[in-house]
Amino acid sequence: MHRFDLSPQDQGALLALCDDLADAARGQTLTFFRTRDLPADTKLAAGFDPVTQADRAAESAMRALLAARRPDDAIIGEEHGSKSGTSGLTWVLDPIDGTRAFISGTTTWGVLIALCDADGPFLGVIDQPYTRERFIGGPGVAELRGPRGTVPLQTRDTTALDQAILFSTFPEIGTDAERAAFQRVAQSCKLTRYGMDCYAYALLAAGHIDLVIEAGLNSYDICAPIAVIDAAGGIVTNWQGEPAHDGGQVLAAANPDLHAAALALLQTRP
Amino acid sequence: MHRFDLSPQDQGALLALCDDLADAARGQTLTFFRTRDLPADTKLAAGFDPVTQADRAAESAMRALLAARRPDDAIIGEEHGSKSGTSGLTWVLDPIDGTRAFISGTTTWGVLIALCDADGPFLGVIDQPYTRERFIGGPGVAELRGPRGTVPLQTRDTTALDQAILFSTFPEIGTDAERAAFQRVAQSCKLTRYGMDCYAYALLAAGHIDLVIEAGLNSYDICAPIAVIDAAGGIVTNWQGEPAHDGGQVLAAANPDLHAAALALLQTRP
Repeated sequence: MHRFDLSPQDQGALLALCDDLADAARGQTLTFFRTRDLPADTKLAAGFDPVTQADRAAESAMRALLAARRPDDAIIGEEHGSKSGTSGLTWVLDPIDGTRAFISGTTTWGVLIALCDADGPFLGVIDQPYTRERFIGGPGVAELRGPRGTVPLQTRDTTALDQAILFSTFPEIGTDAERAAFQRVAQSCKLTRYGMDCYAYALLAAGHIDLVIEAGLNSYDICAPIAVIDAAGGIVTNWQGEPAHDGGQVLAAANPDLHAAALALLQTRP
Repeated sequence: MHRFDLSPQDQGALLALCDDLADAARGQTLTFFRTRDLPADTKLAAGFDPVTQADRAAESAMRALLAARRPDDAIIGEEHGSKSGTSGLTWVLDPIDGTRAFISGTTTWGVLIALCDADGPFLGVIDQPYTRERFIGGPGVAELRGPRGTVPLQTRDTTALDQAILFSTFPEIGTDAERAAFQRVAQSCKLTRYGMDCYAYALLAAGHIDLVIEAGLNSYDICAPIAVIDAAGGIVTNWQGEPAHDGGQVLAAANPDLHAAALALLQTRP
């Protein structure tokens, strides 16, 4: 099955399911957010990559819903791995994007839910449980449901880099070459800020910032942002200008002109 | 007048006034937060220091309240300058700490309100209007009033740097020497994150992170955080271990032992 095979009724049902998935994850994550002495172990022997009970419980809750309502779809999840399917559709789940943010108490982490066909993500949710903000993008929908009600998502029309606000999660970015490429763009922008995790993509979709550039992402980090930003009028690719849903280097821009300007700097050989 | 001259009734009245000041600022700031094409000019000919209508309107609203209810107190405000007083008490106001955050749509900016005597701040509020979180510290009170009701503020007991979470707003920090000093601490910590503005101090008071280190602050950036963190059991000084309420270099720590460990690294000569 492909996104174009879905009837309006199918689309509505999938959107409603996205809401239910995000609600299920919200319940689990909020139980653990900002509790003292949160149990956290490490996935990697070296480095610091906390996994919380919240992460696992939220993904389990979403998988249980999918098992009941979409048993033929495939699933890729950060915590519990991959499950094959027969429908041609794949759910890509990151129960807590931004585990470092989560353990620090910041509200920049989120639950990421995406639905993909063979061409990539076409329906996505970035949910921030504590602030009760849900950024949704898909066929015919681009909206933020939050404390101010439902607000349409629409990216900005900034086309000059020197007017653009750029975000990335870590100033270290990636390799030396990746960091140098990032810095070429950063030095051309009006403002560069760090530390927002998936919330930066949500801010781009909502028209508050213009660029997000990151490296070393996983598929589950970026599928939902791609769908939300696409629906809001923006564009997300890798640093070669190709589809980014497999992860790696990511360039998200508010519009194609700004994307082209940033891409040119990322690709400049110093 | 000194903090020790205040009766419990006086303290209660001042706490209630803090609430009213924060409410007044909330109304003004939320009117302008996340609106498109927010008017912003620059205070400095060089550099990027946006001032929004929200900033000025919020400070004006707070000053109007103080003029009516505390006419004998002095005021230091970021936007509208200083007013002398005769009571011995000074209100220090930053209507929007984190203007870059504000224009980027992140919820890490805040309204800062502090009341000082000759020895420095002893009552403070860090208010985040969009998330409706109000962190309050003063005589007999250390609490967060927010979406989960009223929660006590209490800093953590982390004493080992390699278990500590460190925050700062910008990775650039300040001068080369300041950045090098910061990096000595950062490299000893479990995790370093950026981009939180005054919200980092609130997270420290609430026991989610352990250290905040910054340079180049103004008095109005740090007076309210000092009062809130002091009340929650933490400690804030400059990088010489002296009072920090005049601004400059700031080291905020969850407890005295961790403060001493970080201070030693800041003062190490490379």
